[in-house]
Amino acid sequence: MSEASGTPARQEQERSRVTRQRLMEAAIGALSELGWAGATMTVIAERAGVSRGACQHHFPTRADLVAAAVEYVGHQQVEAVLRKAARLPADARRTEAILHMLAGIYLSPVFTAAVQLWVAAVADPELRAQLAPLEARVGREFHRLTVRLLGVDDGVAEVRELIQGTLDLIRGLALANLLRDDSARRKKVLHRWALTLDEALGARRARKA
Amino acid sequence: MSEASGTPARQEQERSRVTRQRLMEAAIGALSELGWAGATMTVIAERAGVSRGACQHHFPTRADLVAAAVEYVGHQQVEAVLRKAARLPADARRTEAILHMLAGIYLSPVFTAAVQLWVAAVADPELRAQLAPLEARVGREFHRLTVRLLGVDDGVAEVRELIQGTLDLIRGLALANLLRDDSARRKKVLHRWALTLDEALGARRARKA
Repeated sequence: MSEASGTPARQEQERSRVTRQRLMEAAIGALSELGWAGATMTVIAERAGVSRGACQHHFPTRADLVAAAVEYVGHQQVEAVLRKAARLPADARRTEAILHMLAGIYLSPVFTAAVQLWVAAVADPELRAQLAPLEARVGREFHRLTVRLLGVDDGVAEVRELIQGTLDLIRGLALANLLRDDSARRKKVLHRWALTLDEALGARRARKA
Repeated sequence: MSEASGTPARQEQERSRVTRQRLMEAAIGALSELGWAGATMTVIAERAGVSRGACQHHFPTRADLVAAAVEYVGHQQVEAVLRKAARLPADARRTEAILHMLAGIYLSPVFTAAVQLWVAAVADPELRAQLAPLEARVGREFHRLTVRLLGVDDGVAEVRELIQGTLDLIRGLALANLLRDDSARRKKVLHRWALTLDEALGARRARKA
């Protein structure tokens, strides 16, 4: 960004932003590959090329860092999907294309990192308390994204429940992909789900009209 | 079981069966509560009230024990659902009741234990190799159970894909329940999916007829 060449305060701010970003990206990588036990502050700082002290200056605890990382990287992915949304087909294949885009988020390391955190939180009430509001926020952002892409009115309970179910399905598919490449099966399931969802949303629209 | 009062060989066999069962149940409890890192052989043997040596006699490695445990406890739950199936309503509420029964399996500690294993396997190729065929077997058993309860013909691709999607949805719902009690939302999502699934399966049947 051109601001980096501004005043010393601006430069300092920009350096700080870049360091935070590198730490968050390193946290997602370490968590998704090594799990909660393996992704220590030392490992994450090393991967980011940042000193342990600088790391702790930005994120006092590991829970602070990973929570910020899941939210930041999750948000980045939502933004990336929105940028690609203009290229979505407008015809009958649209819903299926949207489901594949959403599945793409859940198939990325940020989902693996999030699942690593969720399961670590099962045995750690403090971590759980920190993650619960984060999960709710990220969940709402994915829900809004889906509503926007599908162009539906989620003020209607039936529609809202179908959207939620769709995101639960995609999360389940992502879990199935942790151990092996499940893409062939996933493609068929998403194709069928897209047709079923279109029929259900269409029926809903028809009843409304 | 009455066989326990039989010949010494029979008694020995029965004792061995009981010990294995206790170890497998302790493994599920330890894994679901403490995760892969915390559920050591020592912890599991202690919880089962079995010596470390006896534990290793039955299960040479921890991976052997947990893989056997997930399969055994998963199978027990399928059997329990089949026993309760006779009491399922035969009317329009049947599909929803089936979805709740299936969700019950995924909401139990065996699912939490399985997710703990899956995420540990991400960083452990040896564990992954051992778990992949197990996951496939357990997945097939749940699929067959669902087909049987719903009374559908999964030789038809559309039906098979809808059943798979239903199980992926339920897995996703179970994941959402790891951090908090998600039952109110889950109830609505399953209600809506039951209606949608019935319509989709009904349309399929109508086209076939």
